[in-house]
Amino acid sequence: MIEPYRLTTSEALPLLKSGELTVEAYARSLLARIKQRDHVVKAWAFLDPEFVLEQAKKLDQIPAEQRGPLHGIPVGVKDVIFTKDMPTVFNSDIYRGGPKQVVDAACIITLRASGALIFGKTTTTEFATTTVGGPSTNPHDESRTPGGSSSGSGAAVGDFQVPIALGTQTGGSTIRPGSYNGIYGFKPTWNAISREGLAVYSLTLDTLGLYARSIADLQLLSNVFRLADDTPIPASPFQIPGAKIAFTKTHIWPKAGPGLKAAWEKAKALLESKGAVVEELEMPEEFGNITEWHDRVCKGEGRSSFLGNYLLAKDKLDSLIQNQVENSTNLTRKAQLEAYDGCAKLRPLWDDIASRYDAVLTPSVPDEAPLGIGSTGDASFCSMWTLLHVPALNIPGFAGENGLPIGLTLVGARYHDLHVLYAGKAIGEVFEREGGFVSKII
Amino acid sequence: MIEPYRLTTSEALPLLKSGELTVEAYARSLLARIKQRDHVVKAWAFLDPEFVLEQAKKLDQIPAEQRGPLHGIPVGVKDVIFTKDMPTVFNSDIYRGGPKQVVDAACIITLRASGALIFGKTTTTEFATTTVGGPSTNPHDESRTPGGSSSGSGAAVGDFQVPIALGTQTGGSTIRPGSYNGIYGFKPTWNAISREGLAVYSLTLDTLGLYARSIADLQLLSNVFRLADDTPIPASPFQIPGAKIAFTKTHIWPKAGPGLKAAWEKAKALLESKGAVVEELEMPEEFGNITEWHDRVCKGEGRSSFLGNYLLAKDKLDSLIQNQVENSTNLTRKAQLEAYDGCAKLRPLWDDIASRYDAVLTPSVPDEAPLGIGSTGDASFCSMWTLLHVPALNIPGFAGENGLPIGLTLVGARYHDLHVLYAGKAIGEVFEREGGFVSKII
Repeated sequence: MIEPYRLTTSEALPLLKSGELTVEAYARSLLARIKQRDHVVKAWAFLDPEFVLEQAKKLDQIPAEQRGPLHGIPVGVKDVIFTKDMPTVFNSDIYRGGPKQVVDAACIITLRASGALIFGKTTTTEFATTTVGGPSTNPHDESRTPGGSSSGSGAAVGDFQVPIALGTQTGGSTIRPGSYNGIYGFKPTWNAISREGLAVYSLTLDTLGLYARSIADLQLLSNVFRLADDTPIPASPFQIPGAKIAFTKTHIWPKAGPGLKAAWEKAKALLESKGAVVEELEMPEEFGNITEWHDRVCKGEGRSSFLGNYLLAKDKLDSLIQNQVENSTNLTRKAQLEAYDGCAKLRPLWDDIASRYDAVLTPSVPDEAPLGIGSTGDASFCSMWTLLHVPALNIPGFAGENGLPIGLTLVGARYHDLHVLYAGKAIGEVFEREGGFVSKII
Repeated sequence: MIEPYRLTTSEALPLLKSGELTVEAYARSLLARIKQRDHVVKAWAFLDPEFVLEQAKKLDQIPAEQRGPLHGIPVGVKDVIFTKDMPTVFNSDIYRGGPKQVVDAACIITLRASGALIFGKTTTTEFATTTVGGPSTNPHDESRTPGGSSSGSGAAVGDFQVPIALGTQTGGSTIRPGSYNGIYGFKPTWNAISREGLAVYSLTLDTLGLYARSIADLQLLSNVFRLADDTPIPASPFQIPGAKIAFTKTHIWPKAGPGLKAAWEKAKALLESKGAVVEELEMPEEFGNITEWHDRVCKGEGRSSFLGNYLLAKDKLDSLIQNQVENSTNLTRKAQLEAYDGCAKLRPLWDDIASRYDAVLTPSVPDEAPLGIGSTGDASFCSMWTLLHVPALNIPGFAGENGLPIGLTLVGARYHDLHVLYAGKAIGEVFEREGGFVSKII
């Protein structure tokens, strides 16, 4: 048998079901993997191996007929998501070593009720707000960032330390680590999964994100979270031959590096070679405002979101957060409302555009993960889709000039989450097989 | 001296500052009031007098120069808002007697950092979602509802059991109890105060609400929460003589009862007699869709919001909540998105309309509080303003046919919160003095 830690969720589930693999044995394999790799990757903000094993043993004792659809599946949880039995620190000096906060986020309640094993808390930038890197490294190259703000979740899944993990996305915090770590990262439609119990930066933007090393795993999770399009799958089937696939560079394209440019051309050529009808889509000009609007929404909402912690211990907050509370850029409410109303107008326009294609691909990041772990990289390709509230899926498969992973993002219309996953499965198979990325992770 | 429990916050603060009143003495007075009245009003879901006094004594020991702007002010907290030192039960059988959830909502962090005394938890309908009344009664007539879902907060402030209290509003949960209990209830612009740590029903709608018996108290709170219009007060002054004041009945008016109709005419006559230019404003027809859209937003968002608790213990949830998770009405995503996009279009339209007037008045509720405590009443006059994200202030002062209080709502454009309070102060003085309501609460 393959080492359990290498399994995806979909591979592990039948083994857990048949009893070939116990939850405890699965957990032990992952813990051993982490022990071997943690000094390099440093993906965990909190991990208590004894507690993990205790929970695993409890799950093993549950009779077969009472087991949930994710029975025994270990999940890494970004440390801005509340877990009642583990500290939640937000990578904040205010909460480090501070009082334990005892509450489960709604998504954690759902996962526990489905039998998942909440494994540990993964690293994040401060309150998932800054781009200041933590200790985590990219599992493909420790001299590079795993991205952020869901740094640890992306790195842990990429490094086979856990099969699935939760992140969040306000700008590009799920998609960017997805691309840098060579894994699938999925940001569903805004609020399609409850965000109760996630730290709040921007209500308009914050979205729970999901990581896995296969689309099948994301489909499992989407079932657990009851994502539901109006048109059920597979009544809306997708196959590459004949599919009308748009490639949209967006106004951020001038940032594209050589890795992205190569992936872009290769992706088009691959899909065309499989029979897809590929088309360059130029986004209407007004979509170019979104980057500015995204910035305004963050600043306007951060102003109220962080007030409590600011009053509690201002000096322990990153200066970016202090500045937001103090409204140091003098953002007016008028400008904030223009951003709200402007993007609200674009959302149905985008849905219309998306509905003209079977799939739309767009960059995830400017290039492979940059050198250094001090900064978590550039999220500007992602933020427009977050503000548009649409499903976005990082599909890995390509390699940059240094052999590190690079992905492309599949985007869809709002509440076409299952469609995006379904199309992503077919496209991902091609990209993973022929995109050229070869993992050196052992 | 007046009995401390009768004081508003603005009256108590100078006494606390001068040392004429200690926090402990203030708390003891309120606790005595509660002891005397609780068997009738039943406003509290959790109250531990010993713990309150312990906290009060600690506050009394803080040196004068370290005291916050709300030093020693007792605050009632609706039991859907997390408090780290008191249970949060949501009036849910799942959480009643269940594990204590230890975390402070962002608004509670802000209040504590400002010196407030978190007094206890007030009753709510289940998850602030249903209209099934709890044990609380209207302090003006125990055979009537105090409204909901912020039942206890409205009743406690109305009954002089606490000077200020926190509620929430998704439909009319702050404004309606405000009217029924004869107090000021203020729902600021959506997300102008962080809603982190409030139970989530609808991200698009849920808003923190504030209760007090004077506008000055709400202005104090708005300072603490740093509400800020673009045009600072009093650069945008308001005085009734010459003010252009709109009265808008909205499409809900056919529900108006005799109490509302009388209040409506009296309010117009009063403001005209003071020199205001009063005008009936007919809302553009498209605003008539908002009631349906509000319903769709609740149903669409409740579907994901309550999934965790549904999976945890479906049978312990009200059937309304079960139905939402199960999408029993077969609401399509398309219909949900139409509601999002439709109201997003109306928000700037409403802001434009509001900016043509110095103040806009609209009904709070169809009439005085109905008989019985089984239902918390009708919120349909309120829900459109919640969906429009605008500040809404219940101003008391009128009386229904049975002598119970009835208020009107002052609404403004988004992020004109301070303006609404400022205008509400002048209008409230007239309504309270000459509106005709006479409190029989002793």
